[in-house]
Amino acid sequence: MLSAVRLLVMPSAYSRSCKTKPGSHPFDEILYCNIGNPQSLGQLPITFFREVLALCDHPPLLDKSETHALFSADAIARACKILDVIPGRATGAYSHSQGIKGLRDAIAAGIAARDGFPANPDDIFLTDGASPAVHMMMQLLIRNEKDGILCPIPQYPLYSASIALHGGSVVPYYLDESTGWGLEISELKKQLEDARSKGITVRALVVINPGNPTGQVLGEENQKEIVNFCKNEGLVLLADEVYQENIYVNDKKFNSFKKIARSMGYGDDDLPLVSFQSVSKGYYGECGKRGGYMEVTGFGPEVREQIYKVASVNLCSNISGQILASLIMNPPKVGDESYESYAAERNGILSSLARRAKALENAFNSFEGVTCNKAEGAMYLFPRLRLPRKAIQAAKAVNAAPDAFYAGRLLDTTGIVVVPGSGFGQVPGTWHVRCTILPQEDKIPAIISRLKAFHEAFMEEFRD
Amino acid sequence: MLSAVRLLVMPSAYSRSCKTKPGSHPFDEILYCNIGNPQSLGQLPITFFREVLALCDHPPLLDKSETHALFSADAIARACKILDVIPGRATGAYSHSQGIKGLRDAIAAGIAARDGFPANPDDIFLTDGASPAVHMMMQLLIRNEKDGILCPIPQYPLYSASIALHGGSVVPYYLDESTGWGLEISELKKQLEDARSKGITVRALVVINPGNPTGQVLGEENQKEIVNFCKNEGLVLLADEVYQENIYVNDKKFNSFKKIARSMGYGDDDLPLVSFQSVSKGYYGECGKRGGYMEVTGFGPEVREQIYKVASVNLCSNISGQILASLIMNPPKVGDESYESYAAERNGILSSLARRAKALENAFNSFEGVTCNKAEGAMYLFPRLRLPRKAIQAAKAVNAAPDAFYAGRLLDTTGIVVVPGSGFGQVPGTWHVRCTILPQEDKIPAIISRLKAFHEAFMEEFRD
Repeated sequence: MLSAVRLLVMPSAYSRSCKTKPGSHPFDEILYCNIGNPQSLGQLPITFFREVLALCDHPPLLDKSETHALFSADAIARACKILDVIPGRATGAYSHSQGIKGLRDAIAAGIAARDGFPANPDDIFLTDGASPAVHMMMQLLIRNEKDGILCPIPQYPLYSASIALHGGSVVPYYLDESTGWGLEISELKKQLEDARSKGITVRALVVINPGNPTGQVLGEENQKEIVNFCKNEGLVLLADEVYQENIYVNDKKFNSFKKIARSMGYGDDDLPLVSFQSVSKGYYGECGKRGGYMEVTGFGPEVREQIYKVASVNLCSNISGQILASLIMNPPKVGDESYESYAAERNGILSSLARRAKALENAFNSFEGVTCNKAEGAMYLFPRLRLPRKAIQAAKAVNAAPDAFYAGRLLDTTGIVVVPGSGFGQVPGTWHVRCTILPQEDKIPAIISRLKAFHEAFMEEFRD
Repeated sequence: MLSAVRLLVMPSAYSRSCKTKPGSHPFDEILYCNIGNPQSLGQLPITFFREVLALCDHPPLLDKSETHALFSADAIARACKILDVIPGRATGAYSHSQGIKGLRDAIAAGIAARDGFPANPDDIFLTDGASPAVHMMMQLLIRNEKDGILCPIPQYPLYSASIALHGGSVVPYYLDESTGWGLEISELKKQLEDARSKGITVRALVVINPGNPTGQVLGEENQKEIVNFCKNEGLVLLADEVYQENIYVNDKKFNSFKKIARSMGYGDDDLPLVSFQSVSKGYYGECGKRGGYMEVTGFGPEVREQIYKVASVNLCSNISGQILASLIMNPPKVGDESYESYAAERNGILSSLARRAKALENAFNSFEGVTCNKAEGAMYLFPRLRLPRKAIQAAKAVNAAPDAFYAGRLLDTTGIVVVPGSGFGQVPGTWHVRCTILPQEDKIPAIISRLKAFHEAFMEEFRD
């Protein structure tokens, strides 16, 4: 299923022919709205983070006077501080398999500052992005095909892929499109009971908040219900919180599930809870650095030891990614030399993403037969397409799902790449596409007008 | 089994108490001879490589005049060249799941220059170190416990761990200690037939060259026999060639299995062959960067597509590691500004490692009851210990393997950490330890005298 998002051979072939044979397509460039990969579309990295990484890559710079002309004072200070916590200042050495202790201390401090509840550096496992962390947990949770994991539909397909890879069963629960992709406890209960009646041992619940591909941000009360559900049913709560910095509406805010659980009075012994975080998302979008961590709470020492064993199979995660994970959880603070430029970069990216989300949402909602929930967070819109019967028949004739047929025609006609909803799962008989909000802002008007012209022509062509 | 190498809690606890409670142990520091992690022991990174990485991490440096005072001209030129092949110059974007095409081109060119035979960039899969590449291949090769993989004994336990993780069977073959850890085709045949008689489908042969933990470098004729064996028996040859730069004797040289196969006239259709390479070993020792690649030849397009699918599950390997993999395969050349300092750094490390290997080998061979083959390559010695009967009984009394008992006593008495041979497998009834040659050269005399004093006292204490 990941292939739906990643393995797109056509766009790159089209992209080559756009360059080598101008005029071979009815468009002059491919517009990638398929992958959550901001820097591939021109988003620049946050300067402070990259300054620190460069200094840690080549520490002799710290002894040179010219360095002060090239790097901010707080980046230099931060690099020194980081090198001081790395044994032997060796950024080229394998670390502890959980990650460098001093960096985990910094991340735990960042989590505590975010949540207002303490975090334990021994609970942090640094990983090469969130994906390997998810695989590690699936490997530990799944014994055989009778072990099931509750997963949202629609869903970023990492989860179903990882469950399949480890031989378990996906237990799907549907998000309610009519209430802004609401997560209803009644639906969780229904699917849990249904799975149990089939002999499945449901071991964990995956929640993606903010949602991917759905973009909703869970409310606090809803999160409390989810925590209680997991506690009552004895489920591990796997909280994908990689979009925690990507919130675009004023009436919603991100709350980590750990903060919610602690605010309900639940301590470490009450609830096994894993939070996944990544350097790939947020306003930083450092996908290529492959950094991330999981915070693992509420498990006994034996399970922790098992996690550590699995982590040690690949020795350790990359040190640059580890450093970057510590940075995103501890960005410059008011008063630091970099603070103003850092805040300007961050706010510039986030407010632009909010404007892009709104513009695309409005556009989709203006199209015939299309409805689109708000992107409250994350990086995606997931509009629903009500396609004419004739279009559905035309899709069937070429053996394609109707939304894949629509996405294919969109690509062929406009060069815009979106992912068909069938790649994420959806209520049978409904059709969607996932469209990122990541193309640079100056391209959004052209994308909207191409989308609009395509959609109108498509509806005209297949009108019943 | 990897736990034998990695999960050593005692040494780090000892290390802490050496600092916090001086005098609490009969030594004042822990001497790590257990892990192939050179930079953790003070080896410095190669300057040129780190200059390029720093510039790629923070490309705005390339536009500043001060940069020329801080970086060599060829590092600046190389960084520009690398950024030019990265789509959008975005070092923070996910890449193609196989790795950035332009970096694979550079690696293929490096392989071709090394071997004198062409390499195809489409055959290169960049990975976060060699371990994930090994896991990917095991995942593809192993369907169930009836699928077996021929693995050397003694063996770096990544292979047995990965085979166990993927539910297959290790088919062990023994290296012959009496002929310098020779790899005998008769032994391979015997074990292959034995496995087949038990209903095991043997799918691949793992060869580690130079050897880990055994340090031998295979001769060309021996490699040819191995290639023919795989071809005749229909086995995939999995060649762990991560120590290809670590050769310490004048009469041996590294030949890749691909070069050997091509020199025998075998082309891409004749033999499925995978070569693993890593930035963690060699003279560069960049373990923390998690870079590496596998070169996959002799498979059909369907298998290649499967490998690509598995690679895409974790999106891509980290871009700094990808860049570094391209650098180690294309270091500075004669005439480049950095060449002389680069060559001095490289030769300094390699010649020092050769001296350390020789000194430790001589020491082990001078000990009562100990014989030690040459470290022709890699980073380890694997001396055989002939222990007194009383020592074996004393080990049994505390439920330890005799070599683990020896290694434990060595740690308690001297602070020297080695890995018991039982962590790698060995002929039953023989006992070994693996000792790296990585402590900095000025520490080697002290290590040798501590080893000697310990060994003499141990033999005295348990003399039959």
